[in-house]
Amino acid sequence: MGKLYVIGIGPGGLDHITVKAMRAIEESNIIVGYTKYISMIKPLIENKEVFSTGMRGEEERCREALRLSRNNIVALVSTGDSGIYGMAGLILEMKSDENVEIIPGITASSAAGSVVGAPLMHDNCNISLSDLMTPYEDIKKRIKLAAEGDFVISLYNPRSKGRPHYLREAIDIIKKYRSDNVPVAIVRHALRDGEESILCTLGTIDCEVVDMFSIVIIGNSKSYIKEDKFITPRGYKI
Amino acid sequence: MGKLYVIGIGPGGLDHITVKAMRAIEESNIIVGYTKYISMIKPLIENKEVFSTGMRGEEERCREALRLSRNNIVALVSTGDSGIYGMAGLILEMKSDENVEIIPGITASSAAGSVVGAPLMHDNCNISLSDLMTPYEDIKKRIKLAAEGDFVISLYNPRSKGRPHYLREAIDIIKKYRSDNVPVAIVRHALRDGEESILCTLGTIDCEVVDMFSIVIIGNSKSYIKEDKFITPRGYKI
Repeated sequence: MGKLYVIGIGPGGLDHITVKAMRAIEESNIIVGYTKYISMIKPLIENKEVFSTGMRGEEERCREALRLSRNNIVALVSTGDSGIYGMAGLILEMKSDENVEIIPGITASSAAGSVVGAPLMHDNCNISLSDLMTPYEDIKKRIKLAAEGDFVISLYNPRSKGRPHYLREAIDIIKKYRSDNVPVAIVRHALRDGEESILCTLGTIDCEVVDMFSIVIIGNSKSYIKEDKFITPRGYKI
Repeated sequence: MGKLYVIGIGPGGLDHITVKAMRAIEESNIIVGYTKYISMIKPLIENKEVFSTGMRGEEERCREALRLSRNNIVALVSTGDSGIYGMAGLILEMKSDENVEIIPGITASSAAGSVVGAPLMHDNCNISLSDLMTPYEDIKKRIKLAAEGDFVISLYNPRSKGRPHYLREAIDIIKKYRSDNVPVAIVRHALRDGEESILCTLGTIDCEVVDMFSIVIIGNSKSYIKEDKFITPRGYKI
């Protein structure tokens, strides 16, 4: 009897993986994942069988992971939290009687937040700007409502070659509800090799520097910058 | 020269702490935290000096942690992600020239989600129902807008003795925008000792069983239950 672990490895740096995820990878004899994610955990998977595919191979990876898990201990790995824009949902949708365990990890907004300070300290939301599976009109509606509700907003998949203008349009929607000096962070490769971050504002953001390896965090009306740290106050009187 | 690590230990079970957080606790000679959190990491802190306070002692804990960090390696620990309703914000607000590092952890909604399936697979938000520092009208407005935007909604601090009706009122607001059969999960002590979970719907939720150790997750309009797992589809055609 086999098993399938659906593992979020967190941001990618091996330091930010959980003990549970690490053990599940060790216990597995087959590792399945997107080529880039597999390379991030290379030191953990020496001498293990690997099944990797390129981007947009999600269905194929999941089908193969489920099939292999009938007679093997399989780890299906992705970055961030397997349950937030990760593989947990698709696996549960596709599975029949395979033995599946979901292991959460640190999602990208938490990782990016920690790099620039404490921007997510109050009510916050995660929105993906990818329109591969969500109509763009629905995405824009969510951005508008999140802006109106004064949520701290973390944008996943903020900009790709196929939709270079969405981020600019999202910022323009948010600016209808928040002032130009609200802080914005662009964090690229948060908590893994190549990490870079930029602090700017709704008024000064340069969308051109943002790519798919970035998370963009937009503060709420009370967020501010103090000595290069992005802080959203929880409300303590200090 | 001392140092202050502001550490999110994740849900509380030692398995779900990150390698980085574990190492920072090991490296520290003084541990600061709420008594209950300290007890969760007991095996990691034998022979270390501990400064703990009861609930609502946040400012005192932070002041003490900052003071001690001038000449010691200090770990200020809380559950979940230190950057989401945790101590990272208050520390950065209060700090002057102390040496502070924020270490993220798995936030409670990620932990709770993994227990019941994959409810957070699409755009989602975290809202705290605590009105200690946020006007209740603002909280209700956020719930309404999140409901209208079809966000998956995770409610933190969903119900306490001082405000027993807020959860019921939140559910009633959401029901104006979503049908009665939308799945709801109540997860108590997610991924730590005493874990329990209930799957119900917007129409059948029994708010009386919810307490401050619980997270309540409300699905979006496409969420469904399959064999006792709560799934929010990402949109793959399968």
